Amino acid sequence: MPVAGIIAEYNPFHNGHLYQIKAVKEAMPDTPIVVAMSGNFLQRGEPACLDKWTRAKLALQNGADLVVEMPVSACVQPADRFAFNGVQILASLGVSDLFFGAEHAEYDFAKFARLVKEAHGEFKTYNESYAATFQKAVTEKIGHPVDSPNDLLGLAYAKANLNLGEPLKLHPIQRKQAGYHDLILKKGTIASASAIRSHYAKGERATLTQYLPQESAQALRTQKLLYWDDFFPYLKYKLLASSPEELQNIYGMAEGIEYRLKDQLERAKPTVTFDEWLKAVKTKRFTYTRLSRLACAILLNLTPKEVAEYNEQPYLRILGFDQAGQEVLRQAKKTSTCELIAKVSQDDKNKAYRVDYRAGKIYQLQNMFEQDLKRAPIRIFS
Amino acid sequence: MPVAGIIAEYNPFHNGHLYQIKAVKEAMPDTPIVVAMSGNFLQRGEPACLDKWTRAKLALQNGADLVVEMPVSACVQPADRFAFNGVQILASLGVSDLFFGAEHAEYDFAKFARLVKEAHGEFKTYNESYAATFQKAVTEKIGHPVDSPNDLLGLAYAKANLNLGEPLKLHPIQRKQAGYHDLILKKGTIASASAIRSHYAKGERATLTQYLPQESAQALRTQKLLYWDDFFPYLKYKLLASSPEELQNIYGMAEGIEYRLKDQLERAKPTVTFDEWLKAVKTKRFTYTRLSRLACAILLNLTPKEVAEYNEQPYLRILGFDQAGQEVLRQAKKTSTCELIAKVSQDDKNKAYRVDYRAGKIYQLQNMFEQDLKRAPIRIFS
Repeated sequence: MPVAGIIAEYNPFHNGHLYQIKAVKEAMPDTPIVVAMSGNFLQRGEPACLDKWTRAKLALQNGADLVVEMPVSACVQPADRFAFNGVQILASLGVSDLFFGAEHAEYDFAKFARLVKEAHGEFKTYNESYAATFQKAVTEKIGHPVDSPNDLLGLAYAKANLNLGEPLKLHPIQRKQAGYHDLILKKGTIASASAIRSHYAKGERATLTQYLPQESAQALRTQKLLYWDDFFPYLKYKLLASSPEELQNIYGMAEGIEYRLKDQLERAKPTVTFDEWLKAVKTKRFTYTRLSRLACAILLNLTPKEVAEYNEQPYLRILGFDQAGQEVLRQAKKTSTCELIAKVSQDDKNKAYRVDYRAGKIYQLQNMFEQDLKRAPIRIFS
Repeated sequence: MPVAGIIAEYNPFHNGHLYQIKAVKEAMPDTPIVVAMSGNFLQRGEPACLDKWTRAKLALQNGADLVVEMPVSACVQPADRFAFNGVQILASLGVSDLFFGAEHAEYDFAKFARLVKEAHGEFKTYNESYAATFQKAVTEKIGHPVDSPNDLLGLAYAKANLNLGEPLKLHPIQRKQAGYHDLILKKGTIASASAIRSHYAKGERATLTQYLPQESAQALRTQKLLYWDDFFPYLKYKLLASSPEELQNIYGMAEGIEYRLKDQLERAKPTVTFDEWLKAVKTKRFTYTRLSRLACAILLNLTPKEVAEYNEQPYLRILGFDQAGQEVLRQAKKTSTCELIAKVSQDDKNKAYRVDYRAGKIYQLQNMFEQDLKRAPIRIFS
């Protein structure tokens, strides 16, 4: 049976996401939609503004049929790795068709993927950032740059799909209105998640309603959105309390950056924000996003061994489903190569899920709600 | 030349401490007084209510001539070890006479020490706390219990002095009015430090003035006193983010208590206080104070190796002095077996002082003032 899939973060779920789900339903009516969503920490290395349960529920209320959590080890990763893990999770759930937003929906992403397949192997100039090096290779192979954020992610999905033997058919959806990084709210009903978060942080909340489905607007009224600065005290403490040798055990630590992370913090004024500190640490080799992900790995005490374990045996957590989603799950249970986790027991705390359990506990320090133990998947049955 | 010594915490410096210094001056006029004071974390395993610089200055303003910092590894220790380290530091500075408060100043502490010298070797019943076992042995050897807090500490000083070849002459001073643990402010001018902190915490500050020298009263008016709960968020984070295996690297971790520390935190309500959590962790074997010290070691990421390094090569930090204190230092520099640290350089951050530097950085997360780098000793010269 055909199953549609989306890889998403929903940080928070807004009209652009709703528009995407509607586009899927239009393209494939009566087809269940599966969403692989990041958990409480996101691809770009930041805490989610709302917890995974709230975000999963919003997705289910707005047309998704099954929402699963991409584990921390799968999710807080460079785009290529994130895309691979997302595609792998969807494929393991029996998804046949992947939908994703793109600035240029007319691109033949599958073809592009074949052209650049080996491009990331040419990453040899160590004083250039990976992104720039990759972009150069892409332009060379494809004949023009592919440098809009969603196009790039689409290309990453296509490459992942190619590497996995093309289990998914690719469906780029033309992005509407908001640019990915736009911080300004434009007239209309679609704004970027960044713009929404940024306006919320500034206290400009009344105007946000027009960019959000009703349930999201409600969530933003009743819950406090979380930002990096809410978790920065713990990160500061961890950096100050740990020796460089201890920090070297963290996933992604490289080239002595641990010294710079510590030094810039010790030099900073006591009121330094996460953003100010990271900008002070930033170098050509260590971009802002790479450092954010590293900061996230430090906060979560994530080790290379844990990420390797995930890669060896991927798993996913079921966050919620409706009737159609339950049918997808029933099929997937027989065939999935990923371990499906429906409930987290005391026992799971010591197994693979321990990384996500830990991330949940740390998120909970600010969010106050138990994230894992005794939480059953959300069931929205009509 | 005779030099008087006191081992103290001054948390905060109050009239009882002033009374003690006056008693020293009466007993030994024109003799310099050296104070070995804990730094930003105290013997009983808690953050100091005011930082070490503030507390050192208050002592100098009230009659001390030289104040040195007892390092974290020396200080956050059971009474016996704390006493040994304090006596060792004072002896290394050329102190000849040790003064300490006692509920029974008439006791012959030196004699008691000889009687119980081997008592702590008889600690074999593992389901009794050390304190109770020790007390039994003391009663047996001396003929009556020695169980008032200051008497007990006096006995610990005497034992330490005996072990070090009796470099110091012991001078117990009769304690006045306030009991060590009293939380009620009594009529008069002397109250326990606990009572002062507890009333300050409750916002009952106006009445505190009568129990404090003028400079201390001023410090309490202008600075925010710090408590365990100010640092509990970092400790909670550390416990949640660390595996039991990682916690086993902490100084004082034993018998699987790391599992209980984590479990009781995970079970607690999100608003749990340090005190509530510790009371839930407490067992017969792990007393409240032992656990507080352990919590402190976890917060400071203190390892057995670091404590062993201190024991191998003790050092001390000079916090401040006046003219008489400077003269004591001049002599001590020639003879001290402890390394004397006057200023902390970038280089010292990686040497023995790194533990205290780290503790300072963690204290600074709440106190906001640089504790070590570029801070020269306080000089109060008339």
